[in-house]
Amino acid sequence: MSLNVVILAAGKGTRMHSELPKVIHSLANKPLLQHVLETSQRLNPETTTIITGYKTDLVKKSITNHNISWCLQEKQLGTGHAVLQSTSHLSADKTLILYGDVPLIDALDLQQLLNKVDEGLAILTCNKTKPEGYGRIVRHKEEIIKIVEEKDCNKEEKKITEINTGIIACNTKNLIAWLGQITNNNSQNEYYLTDIVEFAVKDGLPVHSQLAQKEISVFGVNSKEDLAEIERGLQMSKAKLLMSQGVTLLDPSRIDIRGELKCGTDVTIDVGCIFEGSVTLGANVHLKPYCVLKDCEIKDGTIVEAYSHIDSSIVGSSSRIGPYARLRPGTSLANNVHIGNFVEIKNSSVNQGSKINHLSYIGDSEIGQNVNIGAGTITCNYDGVKKHKTIIEDNVFIGSSSQLIAPVIVGKGATIGAGSTITKNAPEDQLTLSRSQQKTIFGWHKPEKK
Amino acid sequence: MSLNVVILAAGKGTRMHSELPKVIHSLANKPLLQHVLETSQRLNPETTTIITGYKTDLVKKSITNHNISWCLQEKQLGTGHAVLQSTSHLSADKTLILYGDVPLIDALDLQQLLNKVDEGLAILTCNKTKPEGYGRIVRHKEEIIKIVEEKDCNKEEKKITEINTGIIACNTKNLIAWLGQITNNNSQNEYYLTDIVEFAVKDGLPVHSQLAQKEISVFGVNSKEDLAEIERGLQMSKAKLLMSQGVTLLDPSRIDIRGELKCGTDVTIDVGCIFEGSVTLGANVHLKPYCVLKDCEIKDGTIVEAYSHIDSSIVGSSSRIGPYARLRPGTSLANNVHIGNFVEIKNSSVNQGSKINHLSYIGDSEIGQNVNIGAGTITCNYDGVKKHKTIIEDNVFIGSSSQLIAPVIVGKGATIGAGSTITKNAPEDQLTLSRSQQKTIFGWHKPEKK
Amino acid sequence: MSLNVVILAAGKGTRMHSELPKVIHSLANKPLLQHVLETSQRLNPETTTIITGYKTDLVKKSITNHNISWCLQEKQLGTGHAVLQSTSHLSADKTLILYGDVPLIDALDLQQLLNKVDEGLAILTCNKTKPEGYGRIVRHKEEIIKIVEEKDCNKEEKKITEINTGIIACNTKNLIAWLGQITNNNSQNEYYLTDIVEFAVKDGLPVHSQLAQKEISVFGVNSKEDLAEIERGLQMSKAKLLMSQGVTLLDPSRIDIRGELKCGTDVTIDVGCIFEGSVTLGANVHLKPYCVLKDCEIKDGTIVEAYSHIDSSIVGSSSRIGPYARLRPGTSLANNVHIGNFVEIKNSSVNQGSKINHLSYIGDSEIGQNVNIGAGTITCNYDGVKKHKTIIEDNVFIGSSSQLIAPVIVGKGATIGAGSTITKNAPEDQLTLSRSQQKTIFGWHKPEKK
Repeated sequence: MSLNVVILAAGKGTRMHSELPKVIHSLANKPLLQHVLETSQRLNPETTTIITGYKTDLVKKSITNHNISWCLQEKQLGTGHAVLQSTSHLSADKTLILYGDVPLIDALDLQQLLNKVDEGLAILTCNKTKPEGYGRIVRHKEEIIKIVEEKDCNKEEKKITEINTGIIACNTKNLIAWLGQITNNNSQNEYYLTDIVEFAVKDGLPVHSQLAQKEISVFGVNSKEDLAEIERGLQMSKAKLLMSQGVTLLDPSRIDIRGELKCGTDVTIDVGCIFEGSVTLGANVHLKPYCVLKDCEIKDGTIVEAYSHIDSSIVGSSSRIGPYARLRPGTSLANNVHIGNFVEIKNSSVNQGSKINHLSYIGDSEIGQNVNIGAGTITCNYDGVKKHKTIIEDNVFIGSSSQLIAPVIVGKGATIGAGSTITKNAPEDQLTLSRSQQKTIFGWHKPEKK
Repeated sequence: MSLNVVILAAGKGTRMHSELPKVIHSLANKPLLQHVLETSQRLNPETTTIITGYKTDLVKKSITNHNISWCLQEKQLGTGHAVLQSTSHLSADKTLILYGDVPLIDALDLQQLLNKVDEGLAILTCNKTKPEGYGRIVRHKEEIIKIVEEKDCNKEEKKITEINTGIIACNTKNLIAWLGQITNNNSQNEYYLTDIVEFAVKDGLPVHSQLAQKEISVFGVNSKEDLAEIERGLQMSKAKLLMSQGVTLLDPSRIDIRGELKCGTDVTIDVGCIFEGSVTLGANVHLKPYCVLKDCEIKDGTIVEAYSHIDSSIVGSSSRIGPYARLRPGTSLANNVHIGNFVEIKNSSVNQGSKINHLSYIGDSEIGQNVNIGAGTITCNYDGVKKHKTIIEDNVFIGSSSQLIAPVIVGKGATIGAGSTITKNAPEDQLTLSRSQQKTIFGWHKPEKK
Repeated sequence: MSLNVVILAAGKGTRMHSELPKVIHSLANKPLLQHVLETSQRLNPETTTIITGYKTDLVKKSITNHNISWCLQEKQLGTGHAVLQSTSHLSADKTLILYGDVPLIDALDLQQLLNKVDEGLAILTCNKTKPEGYGRIVRHKEEIIKIVEEKDCNKEEKKITEINTGIIACNTKNLIAWLGQITNNNSQNEYYLTDIVEFAVKDGLPVHSQLAQKEISVFGVNSKEDLAEIERGLQMSKAKLLMSQGVTLLDPSRIDIRGELKCGTDVTIDVGCIFEGSVTLGANVHLKPYCVLKDCEIKDGTIVEAYSHIDSSIVGSSSRIGPYARLRPGTSLANNVHIGNFVEIKNSSVNQGSKINHLSYIGDSEIGQNVNIGAGTITCNYDGVKKHKTIIEDNVFIGSSSQLIAPVIVGKGATIGAGSTITKNAPEDQLTLSRSQQKTIFGWHKPEKK
């Protein structure tokens, strides 16, 4: 059977106290709506329609998927009214209604919900430890007979912990018919999607339900406090997944994974590390505390010391990075490379066995094997307009505090004397330097404190 | 009606295991006693008296308020005896007794407590989840009839969860009379302030009570474990307040605000950030993880990357700071400024569009617009005795690894060659440098491993 | 009475998903097995035997103790079979059976368990809040009559919260006799040590028990999630111990002590600090956030600013270190020393009153009193083969961005001009520098954007 997905994403989210529409706020660095969209696409829908209202342009820009139909709900007159905007797109047999602010829906829950839809509809419900504020599912001998809103609950109904998540799957033809019957004759003057349950019962069609496996998967975000709660919940479940795969986490409540983290065997991640984008850690990689890694790969056996900051880089195996090392985009390090403290590398390759251990800036450079770059070395890659390249060949020794003014080549096996400004190519195997003579000014008087 | 505030702050706090008196230990970077004092001043008291005992001088020095009367309780013979020391200062109609080690008292609780005082007294009580160890409030038909200490409680009384906080408001005239009647005929040989409740009942005067809204607001600090508990409680309430105002916190249990943090709309604060003193963040400011900010202002749209350390500085809008940037006191950055990694700036201004991206020290400098400071640039502002000024005018390009020996001026549009030591002013629009010729020493032999 | 300790450490620990045997995984930076071993040695055993199986060599290498007898259990046929391998070593009167994956056993619990052994045996039991999955202790009038495994429990037995920890103390002669009687006639075809309880009852010998004081002390590690849980439990108990001694912790859930931390009075440790090996902090030391300290001593009154990284170093009193300071092994700082941001020091001594405040690398150096090292100073201690020494005598002023090419001596009171490359000794009290003349190239044209 074919499927329509409709995602409601029109609300402002007043309680977020933000200039941004609620559904584009980030959870693990991805818009709430994008989470919903990605999960829904795993159900292979024939159509996907997003209903926007508040700041539509921002919502559209936040989404990377193609093949989305966008519908505008100009006035926000309720969930029933929102879905009604989408009817011209609903070409498939069944329709699943989702919410842009319920980001952690579970694909299996949804699939099982869909499996229960025939002519009627199926509601995703949830057993909540604190059901207050939600519509309760009232059953008679297992059968759902009605959904009662909190304010209309009697004493017995208030004790019910099974609540309506609002997520509904429905036979499309019936859905369209029922949407037309919803009225706004209620205290809020809103068109409620939930009213279709009543119509189904009236039409003698079955109302099925599926119980969500986890509370967090139907958690709706209405405030920044909700956002923080679901962020921590998601992070803890990511941490648990890593541990179940054998990753050693020194503190599962102090790790943040905002994207995808793949780990080899016997990886250890110390406290406070943060991962963004797509990060791959090889076997026996050891990350020390407070590292920030984004879109990078660290190969087997490498140790990344504390406070290292790595972005869009590749680090070879058996290397040692940091502490306080910054690898910027375009850095590619081979195996057995050492990058030490207060070193910045950008758009450069460093071949195996080379060391840049202290206080250096290496940009737009190609560095060979077994090169030793002294403390305070700076590649002057920028002339104020263009970036130029520095090439340092195998087995070079660069003395401390040298400046290499690109474009420049330091030949194989060359030595550069400390404190040199290198403006022309340095020949292979020779000592090249620029240096003024050391002089002592006898009789010079220090500034003195009066 | 006029008010006296009396704050008991004489104790050593033996269980703190400290050389410092208990009440000057810090909660959110402010002495416990200072918290009590600031809250009490919101009630506009006519007099404020602090009773000290242990290391009075340290206690006095820790307090910034004026118009405090200080009383010395030479021997610590109990709370009743402590308050007795203050009687000569109690010129107002009502008196409120507070404790220097109960720092998070709530001004509204206290105001409502005071509103209930007439001829008799009013006790602040609290419903505690774990009442063990506290004096229980025993009532008969709503009326307080007595306070029973833990050790004297019968089985029924032990179940009472409403406890005596010790905070009492009282008609001053009666208070003074009752203080004189307190004896130390008890197992501890102490003069207990609580005894006045009994005297009030005996005198036929009403004993009112006010229930504290939150447990934390009557939490007393007796140990470093208590101190940590109240610190975390206060930090969590600060985090919740920020979120309710629309600030996005990646983890509300990993933020520390030791002072005042004001945020514009759509501010995002990543994990592990710490705020001290008075910090203001403009709209759309994004703080990345592990930043430490003290007494500073960051204007709209600026991104502060990880591990940045900012103290007594102003950062303009749309700027990018860090990672690993350190802004020391007296730094003032205009809009669109970039300060990169391993850069220290002190007592300097940087005008708009300028960049100091790598490994530099800028001190006592004025930097114009659209200046580019190369990696490894150092302003030599200190001659061993005095600090001198460096002025870098608009559109200057400073080559990497240059030293600018202050006092010195680099004129508008000038370029400084990499690796130069600039001792004299550099003229506008020209290239200035100091450089030795690059030489190659042919036939030189590298040190070799034997 | 004399004691044998037998520690079972043969298992692979499949659920750890690791290439390493379970017992060598680290808890607070020490192998699980090493924890067990160290606690057991406090009981002064006559013999200590470790039963290994999976990757014996790795297990042996992880242990630092001597006087261990190692036994190989080639096939892992159950705990009874494991202990059976050790019988030739069991020369003492009593035998205590421990587990390499139950790391936090309490020495007092064990001593009290041993005190109860006479001819029979004594079982360490525990009241668990969640007893599911454990063998329950079934008693009749206080006497243990049997241990029932979870799967064999009836409804009443399932409610029992006292569980069998597996830790047993036994008369050695009887133990050896009973071990021979254990069979593998059970569903798992394993030889269970627990069967000896039945034999003792059959032989009419008393089965005593000792209740473990804390759940964590009998917690067994089976997965990385267990490992994280016990790590956090241990860290929290270390944090509480520090606070009870008077240390101020800004957040007890954000401190990691992987070794031993000794603190003087009035020490304050801000959030996120990490301690490894043996660290001593003097009175009034203040550690700011996110410091990493390993095997070092910080003396009285010193402030260590944020993100400082200190390893195998000594820091004198009243000093100021960091932020972003890195002290590497062999650093020894006297009193009143200032080490500032982006400074790395290695294998060097700095005498009192000296300052190295900015962006410097000091290696293999001896620095005298009241020396001022300017920003960007680098000791060129490495010629590609050997390390050489730099000596900077008292009252020297090193201008910024200087390189000191070791071996070199800067004499007392000397001044080095900024930007100098110092290759020869600099005489006392004089200004020494190497500097090219500053030139302006008039008519030079900047690179221009097209």
